[in-house]
Amino acid sequence: MLTASLKSQLSEGLPEERSEHRQKKVIKMGNCCERAANFFGPQKNTYIRVSLPAVCFVWQIAMVVLFGVFIRYDEESDEKGWNEYKKSHNITSNIENDFYFRYPSFQDVHVMIFVGFGFLMTFLKRYSFGGVGFNFLIAAFGLQWALLMQGWFHALDPVTGKITIGIESLINADFCCAGSLIAYGALLGKVSPVQLMVVTLFGVTLFAVEEYIILDLLHCRDAGGSMVIHTFGGYYGLAISWVLYRPNLNLSKRLNGSVYHSDLFAMIGALFLWMFWPSFNSAITNHGAGQHRTVINTYLALASCVLTTFAISSMGQKKGKLDMVHIQNATLAAGVAMGTAAEFMITPYGSIIVGFCCGIISTFGYLYVTPFLEKKLKLQDTCGIHNLHAVPGMLGGFVGAIVAATATEEIYGKEGLIETFGLTGKYVNRTMSTQGGYQAAGTCVAIAFGLVGGVCVGFILRFPIWGDPADDFCFDDEAYWELPEDEETIPPVLEYNNHMINKHHDTHESQFSLEES
Amino acid sequence: MLTASLKSQLSEGLPEERSEHRQKKVIKMGNCCERAANFFGPQKNTYIRVSLPAVCFVWQIAMVVLFGVFIRYDEESDEKGWNEYKKSHNITSNIENDFYFRYPSFQDVHVMIFVGFGFLMTFLKRYSFGGVGFNFLIAAFGLQWALLMQGWFHALDPVTGKITIGIESLINADFCCAGSLIAYGALLGKVSPVQLMVVTLFGVTLFAVEEYIILDLLHCRDAGGSMVIHTFGGYYGLAISWVLYRPNLNLSKRLNGSVYHSDLFAMIGALFLWMFWPSFNSAITNHGAGQHRTVINTYLALASCVLTTFAISSMGQKKGKLDMVHIQNATLAAGVAMGTAAEFMITPYGSIIVGFCCGIISTFGYLYVTPFLEKKLKLQDTCGIHNLHAVPGMLGGFVGAIVAATATEEIYGKEGLIETFGLTGKYVNRTMSTQGGYQAAGTCVAIAFGLVGGVCVGFILRFPIWGDPADDFCFDDEAYWELPEDEETIPPVLEYNNHMINKHHDTHESQFSLEES
Amino acid sequence: MLTASLKSQLSEGLPEERSEHRQKKVIKMGNCCERAANFFGPQKNTYIRVSLPAVCFVWQIAMVVLFGVFIRYDEESDEKGWNEYKKSHNITSNIENDFYFRYPSFQDVHVMIFVGFGFLMTFLKRYSFGGVGFNFLIAAFGLQWALLMQGWFHALDPVTGKITIGIESLINADFCCAGSLIAYGALLGKVSPVQLMVVTLFGVTLFAVEEYIILDLLHCRDAGGSMVIHTFGGYYGLAISWVLYRPNLNLSKRLNGSVYHSDLFAMIGALFLWMFWPSFNSAITNHGAGQHRTVINTYLALASCVLTTFAISSMGQKKGKLDMVHIQNATLAAGVAMGTAAEFMITPYGSIIVGFCCGIISTFGYLYVTPFLEKKLKLQDTCGIHNLHAVPGMLGGFVGAIVAATATEEIYGKEGLIETFGLTGKYVNRTMSTQGGYQAAGTCVAIAFGLVGGVCVGFILRFPIWGDPADDFCFDDEAYWELPEDEETIPPVLEYNNHMINKHHDTHESQFSLEES
Repeated sequence: MLTASLKSQLSEGLPEERSEHRQKKVIKMGNCCERAANFFGPQKNTYIRVSLPAVCFVWQIAMVVLFGVFIRYDEESDEKGWNEYKKSHNITSNIENDFYFRYPSFQDVHVMIFVGFGFLMTFLKRYSFGGVGFNFLIAAFGLQWALLMQGWFHALDPVTGKITIGIESLINADFCCAGSLIAYGALLGKVSPVQLMVVTLFGVTLFAVEEYIILDLLHCRDAGGSMVIHTFGGYYGLAISWVLYRPNLNLSKRLNGSVYHSDLFAMIGALFLWMFWPSFNSAITNHGAGQHRTVINTYLALASCVLTTFAISSMGQKKGKLDMVHIQNATLAAGVAMGTAAEFMITPYGSIIVGFCCGIISTFGYLYVTPFLEKKLKLQDTCGIHNLHAVPGMLGGFVGAIVAATATEEIYGKEGLIETFGLTGKYVNRTMSTQGGYQAAGTCVAIAFGLVGGVCVGFILRFPIWGDPADDFCFDDEAYWELPEDEETIPPVLEYNNHMINKHHDTHESQFSLEES
Repeated sequence: MLTASLKSQLSEGLPEERSEHRQKKVIKMGNCCERAANFFGPQKNTYIRVSLPAVCFVWQIAMVVLFGVFIRYDEESDEKGWNEYKKSHNITSNIENDFYFRYPSFQDVHVMIFVGFGFLMTFLKRYSFGGVGFNFLIAAFGLQWALLMQGWFHALDPVTGKITIGIESLINADFCCAGSLIAYGALLGKVSPVQLMVVTLFGVTLFAVEEYIILDLLHCRDAGGSMVIHTFGGYYGLAISWVLYRPNLNLSKRLNGSVYHSDLFAMIGALFLWMFWPSFNSAITNHGAGQHRTVINTYLALASCVLTTFAISSMGQKKGKLDMVHIQNATLAAGVAMGTAAEFMITPYGSIIVGFCCGIISTFGYLYVTPFLEKKLKLQDTCGIHNLHAVPGMLGGFVGAIVAATATEEIYGKEGLIETFGLTGKYVNRTMSTQGGYQAAGTCVAIAFGLVGGVCVGFILRFPIWGDPADDFCFDDEAYWELPEDEETIPPVLEYNNHMINKHHDTHESQFSLEES
Repeated sequence: MLTASLKSQLSEGLPEERSEHRQKKVIKMGNCCERAANFFGPQKNTYIRVSLPAVCFVWQIAMVVLFGVFIRYDEESDEKGWNEYKKSHNITSNIENDFYFRYPSFQDVHVMIFVGFGFLMTFLKRYSFGGVGFNFLIAAFGLQWALLMQGWFHALDPVTGKITIGIESLINADFCCAGSLIAYGALLGKVSPVQLMVVTLFGVTLFAVEEYIILDLLHCRDAGGSMVIHTFGGYYGLAISWVLYRPNLNLSKRLNGSVYHSDLFAMIGALFLWMFWPSFNSAITNHGAGQHRTVINTYLALASCVLTTFAISSMGQKKGKLDMVHIQNATLAAGVAMGTAAEFMITPYGSIIVGFCCGIISTFGYLYVTPFLEKKLKLQDTCGIHNLHAVPGMLGGFVGAIVAATATEEIYGKEGLIETFGLTGKYVNRTMSTQGGYQAAGTCVAIAFGLVGGVCVGFILRFPIWGDPADDFCFDDEAYWELPEDEETIPPVLEYNNHMINKHHDTHESQFSLEES
């Protein structure tokens, strides 16, 4: 009896052990597939199969049509060749030749958008494909839509009805995408690619409108986009995430974390963002002293931020250990916070104080605010954009307002002041304190657009038609990607046994599933 | 009896299970080593030990000698210092100062060659070292050889017998390497480094000849190299791969795939290629409007291509899942296809239509054409260069021909037309439709050079002296690299048991090997 | 009886096997934690918890104060706007406009410092976080300190007591950090972050002094820093490592190696260093022909070096296999060795000969010298900086001396000679052979500063207050980082069993620990 039970224990137990590692895998995979099958049921499956391609096709065809109707090159000239162009643009004063002075900055910004944001979001152990891949998709869509939206607001020729685009348009389009990519950070792992396309469509549209209000109507200065990009993008993402709150997200908790190498991939993104942030903030500032100053201010703030981030990260953990999440994210907060003020004469001294404070605030946010938000405000923020974009962006907006309000002719020079704040035309009589007030008002507009826009888009995304993953299927690339089999293929002989085990498991598994449900 | 058998079952079974994961590893390793020993037998071993170093040394010494005889700096001036140089080169019109306007583009192209191509080829689970490492080796060799070959054809001073090199020569050398690196894509995992050196030696030579024919004799325009780089490189690689067909390659099938993190490494390469492709296509175009236009056209085509790639990738898979292979590769096809036409006034509208089509064609290629080629045409194309380079390159050549044929003075302006197509000197009377015809002819020349040259080089590579891996040893870094031990070292006590297991396994293993054979 | 023992064997054995992989992990983790607890005992723990944040805070506050007192922008102008600035700086001769011609080089150098050095040091299997993370920390601190130190020596306005900083200062600050980052290469995995902050504090200080002596007092030319950066940094790190010799480092031997994917991460760093080295060497050379020549010389030397590295690497291993360590490191030696001479007219021919030799010397160093140093000189050099920086740097210094000594007016032109070697003012009568002698003397100064400075700093670091890891805890991120749990979480049912196992293990483990100790 004893031995019989023992034997049964063995016969059951042994093969079970044989592929214990694999077994766990199989159970996981089995569940995944089952869940996937449940979720992407026949109808849904068909739906999904149509929807992403359909959205991509329809929107890309719309782009083709709209580009055909509206877009032309800035430098395209119907009657003039390059030599004539040179003469007409007075190219001997090369400093005006935007292309050569903007192009390296453009490529730096481009790297930040695709490699920086993309790889920063690969930190999840099983959502790296989604992080970098969907970032790629929505950025590529967003920049086309941004060229059109920003063109309609800023560069539409009323006579020809055409938008002329140049290198600065491409930089602005990248900036415009950045707002939606930031929002993606809060939603990472919890939404479908189709939902992301919707987030981007509305995000870019809202961005163009609030940018028009802040930069054109309120006449604020915001070269690096503390307000228009980061504050807006941050609150937009948080509001969407708040509406899409998932009470049972802890069913996917096991996947909401990193592994050793996924953290290293995320460091690639973090470092490219950190290094190129001076290019980001200075990409569309005034040539010469303005651009120079922006680069140095941003660079110093970023350097300063790294040290305080390490300090707080070490203080916040048991045994003084450092947390990779902080190093990847909080070190960048200074770049966000300098987006507005870097262009002004905040002085090197002021810059490193801003960096100093941002490292502290952002790391504290990761340590205490994000958990608090999730627990009390029902706000699930996967990447912690609250601490990296929303708060530092808002802070940057107000720092910019203060620096603008305190600007004087003694510091900037008469011409410098006019040029830095663009106080020409109808703004010629605006005092600096008024300008400061408008800058602060601009920040509030960005917050309002983010929150209201985000809530609206969030409700749109709650329609049950977008194919978002089930609660126990979040943070899992399995849902939207063909994944490579990570296990090494097992040689034939062993495989035979495994087949047996698998059969045997299927029973177990369904039992387990039953138990679970 | 029962318990005895049970016990034996235990004594055998238990330790077996103990290191079940390791065991698989050991079997795999064992086989590898055995195979390696069989393959790199005493003679061959000696041969291999000599050959790669010998080739590297001999060729590098040849480079030293040839550089000594032929090469001098473009800006090197025997009698003049920089101030005199400035005067003589009329530096106040800085637009002519190639160095500063070409250098950022050069670095972008350099990143594409080494990081872009290199990491794009790391996607295989156990051939990432070979992918990025051999890419590094052959690119470093190729660019030296390219400086000489292209110099002899284009920049040889007939009086002094010297080649003057400048920043544009370095960009062209990178382009020239690209042809051979594309060919490597088809051969990835199936050839030895020595074979790759041979591929590169002939590839660069053939490239210089066909480039001379296409650009100088036919007077085609091909700034981004749709014809001279991609079409040639693609068909060159495919022809070599066709000659080197391995009927038993399925013995290595288990390694011909990716793992989760290798796909992420490949995404690094893919994104750097995607981002910098506008620099690639515009690196040697005319300054000013020409370069500007090329950047915008390429950028728009690439963005458009991403959406259709995602669409078709999702349509082509069960349950609408996306495939990383498509995202890594097909998104780049638009850059290839815009290589010729981006420089022309294809209009933003035309660009995104080209991108739209390329995403579809290339992804279809990965889904259906590559398997078809392998099955029916006996053509094994590891990276699918047929879909990423050969077909989009050819397409780009013909698109360029059409755009050239339809160019008019109304669109380009008189001077613009002359400058864009270089219609000066003896080409002053060439009509645009003639130019279009020559462009189409150039594409055919590139295909012909690729196919014929590839078949010849393929036969050279079939000599049994190059140390290529056995069929069951392909796609495995084990063949050419000292690999780190991936298993974590086991603590002493457990290690003891494992030693026993290993002994015990050795028997098993050889039995297994016998069974296998 | 038999069955009872069997049963006990089962009850013990089976669950033991069940999580055999996990068990090893647990033992390892358990030991780690135990060791960590022993090491970071209550007092030390408190100490550590205070120390890194304290150092970061105190030093960053010092930076804030010092920046407030000393630093101002180069282009900041109190009375002039940009238009006036343009006039006053004669901007029509744009070649003088440093910002636009230096900025792309600056960003390339920046990428080398943070991604290049950072990822090159991720090759260790369990110290990748420390490699890239601490590199980030000390570079961000070092560049602030460097701006001050270099400013005091080179850019302090005696009247205002202010240092003006511009884009060239940022490049020089990056260079200055590089010295300390090189030193980190020798210490990788064996020191605490606080120790690294000390290494950087003294490293940057010493660098500024020796740079002042070599460049200003001896009036050497060293644009790419063969002497001031690489020779100094290399010997500085080696001397520190020699003083900190750990006789029992083999206790951590199991972690002193790479895994497959960590080697690929290191390749990212290696390739970015390799590609951007021409920018590094040319970043602060004279505009125009000087910068052009530096780029081409460095580029050719690097290309040549790759081939000889592959050759020697293959010759040095059994079966002609290649070693990733050589490919990652020795291929870069040519860039180091060209740091001084690249600016001179060493000719393309001379450049590839230097590259040829460096690949051989450096790879031989990795194969034979590093093991020899460790065994005989008690010098533990984790990254082999002896072969990548110290020796090639010294070599580069002497190559530079020879090229300078043999420079003639026939080759450089009268003005070219004066401009290249800066022979104006009180150096107007210096002959070229004298200049060569000074260059050689400069190299010796760099070696002396490195060795003496390193020994002194090494003794400072031996105080038992810095929280360095125990011998059996080196090369382990566990010491300073919160590591993600690499195992996949086990589903609830299995987890229950594992809890049992773990309890059961705790006993085992402590027994094991006792056995071990």
